[in-house]
Amino acid sequence: MTSGSGAEVGAGAWPPLREELRGIEPYGAPQLDVPYALNVNENPYAPPAACVADIAESVARAAETLNRYPDREFVELRAALAAYLSRDVAPGQAPVAPEQVWAANGSNEVMLQLLQAFGGPGRTALSFAPTYSMYPEYARDTHTAWVAGRRAEDFTLDLDAARAAVGEHRPSVVLLPSPNNPTGTALSPEAVDVLCGAVGDDGVVVVDEAYGEFRRAGTPSALELLPVHRNLVVTRTMSKAFAGAGLRLGYLAAHPAIADAIRVVRLPYHLSATTQAVALAALRHADALLGQVDALRGERDTLVDWLRAQGHDVADSDANFVLFGRFADRHAVWQGLLERGVLIRETGPEGWLRVSVGTPEEMAAFRDALTIVTKENQ
Amino acid sequence: MTSGSGAEVGAGAWPPLREELRGIEPYGAPQLDVPYALNVNENPYAPPAACVADIAESVARAAETLNRYPDREFVELRAALAAYLSRDVAPGQAPVAPEQVWAANGSNEVMLQLLQAFGGPGRTALSFAPTYSMYPEYARDTHTAWVAGRRAEDFTLDLDAARAAVGEHRPSVVLLPSPNNPTGTALSPEAVDVLCGAVGDDGVVVVDEAYGEFRRAGTPSALELLPVHRNLVVTRTMSKAFAGAGLRLGYLAAHPAIADAIRVVRLPYHLSATTQAVALAALRHADALLGQVDALRGERDTLVDWLRAQGHDVADSDANFVLFGRFADRHAVWQGLLERGVLIRETGPEGWLRVSVGTPEEMAAFRDALTIVTKENQ
Repeated sequence: MTSGSGAEVGAGAWPPLREELRGIEPYGAPQLDVPYALNVNENPYAPPAACVADIAESVARAAETLNRYPDREFVELRAALAAYLSRDVAPGQAPVAPEQVWAANGSNEVMLQLLQAFGGPGRTALSFAPTYSMYPEYARDTHTAWVAGRRAEDFTLDLDAARAAVGEHRPSVVLLPSPNNPTGTALSPEAVDVLCGAVGDDGVVVVDEAYGEFRRAGTPSALELLPVHRNLVVTRTMSKAFAGAGLRLGYLAAHPAIADAIRVVRLPYHLSATTQAVALAALRHADALLGQVDALRGERDTLVDWLRAQGHDVADSDANFVLFGRFADRHAVWQGLLERGVLIRETGPEGWLRVSVGTPEEMAAFRDALTIVTKENQ
Repeated sequence: MTSGSGAEVGAGAWPPLREELRGIEPYGAPQLDVPYALNVNENPYAPPAACVADIAESVARAAETLNRYPDREFVELRAALAAYLSRDVAPGQAPVAPEQVWAANGSNEVMLQLLQAFGGPGRTALSFAPTYSMYPEYARDTHTAWVAGRRAEDFTLDLDAARAAVGEHRPSVVLLPSPNNPTGTALSPEAVDVLCGAVGDDGVVVVDEAYGEFRRAGTPSALELLPVHRNLVVTRTMSKAFAGAGLRLGYLAAHPAIADAIRVVRLPYHLSATTQAVALAALRHADALLGQVDALRGERDTLVDWLRAQGHDVADSDANFVLFGRFADRHAVWQGLLERGVLIRETGPEGWLRVSVGTPEEMAAFRDALTIVTKENQ
């Protein structure tokens, strides 16, 4: 089996893989068996027992007609997602309507569909580095040109530079994670405003709020700007806040014409009856799941404070992970932590490391290990 | 909501959809609420109660760790699919190995991944019409040139013409449904041999056995040819024989290097933990599910005989559907059946109609309705 080997594939002349795909290592963090896995920003809390029971019952019901194709337009799920998103709109703003919502198997399939519809040959996708490392792969797989501008030193967007990049490259898709992965930085409403204005009707501006529910109090969601910009797309996932990384359910809110347009490139029946049933069950337990999110936000703020108290540089975080540094030899620190059973992620700009926020026990283990490893590497 | 509206999308100047996608009607048979739905080749038999219970238990177990990402390489599922496929190899042939297997969300995602890896800009996909109506959409969405040769009058492949088409177009992907949709025609081993030989190392030959389990006794699976041709890909689905249209699980068997190469274009964690759990549960009930397939094969043969006895032209069928005709005004026949509560599919060559094989009760309703409608349209 090729499980987690991380080896290059198709490097030779056969099989007749496309030239640009040969010898590439498939994306994926190493799946290692360690006591403390803090490397892929999973939610450390399993779904509560009541949610698990609801999922099992819902799937049993769906399985009774599993011989039939699922609802191609997932009407019930779109309505439930719209109702959930409506919690995050501004006071007085109209709720998100079901026809503004689209969903797919993970927000990576949502991104692929957006690039299939609005990117492609002869078109350009723009982001600002450091940014989510999968975006260039989605661009490559849809034959969309990929341009990455730079973020400022503090990982925020330099709005003049961003506006200039849009003017220069005329992107049909702009991809902006908020909070940003791997830095944890949320976009300001002004930044979204400026980019939507600069792109105009020539493209779509995708604000990727995969970690949106973890934002700090006072940080608004880009959902508040949907009534202002018809070219704005806000994506979310159930992987993180909904403790559903194993479920693979990503979704978006946008102008209804954008949600509708994606139907041309979606594979028919792309969302299985079981996926729809599990997602609906999890949404019924949103309050309990968001309670776990609150606990993680507190743990995150504690971690940031502790890291700063130890003298580390720490990027402000609105996510369930923290970027910290800077280390002359970050690989040695990463390796030292791994040897103590703590797996984090060697990613982001040189000298920085990213750690997911886990349970209090996991965070204690991380702090203990880092204290030792930092001393050894001084 | 846009549910099943079948309307064109993105016909105007905004949103900025790709030019070739504007004004297209998204794929999909009308989802009408009728007493007898015989239009999308679903298996009319729901999974047996023991299978449903196993699915529910398996998903409940998977849901307990739903906060974690699924096994990216779905090792257990690949092994189970390999073991299942090994039932269909020739006597004395080595069983299908797990590393020869790949799976995705429906065989349409398998096809998309094959075209992403082996098709794309500057490359050509070849099939022979009449053929599955989604193939040109997969080609369009991967920017692969699409060429459709013609089948012979009896819907078999003219091997000299097929070889000539390969020589002329040098396809990197050949797509051959067997049994063919919408005609029900199985490919002969000679046809697969000839095409694999003609394509050689420049491409892959995909034999789409979505309906493979319904083939008549004595019709071999293309799996028997895997040891002979390293460029052969055989695809299957759990939608039909496994009564799992709602599950969305398609898979393939091929040379391990081909299965491995697809990992470069697959979206990370594309198969959810719940999909893996449900598929594994269904595979544990393969014998019961294949018993239902046997009943449908008998019903199919009875239907073919009856239609011929009524004087209709009927294409030989190795599938769970039957193409029959020919009608001067097939739309009138389709409409007449619908008015009697029987929904079939207006597809295939002019004058022909396609009906899915259902339960004895559904088939009786179809026969009664067709008898009346045929008289009215004489």
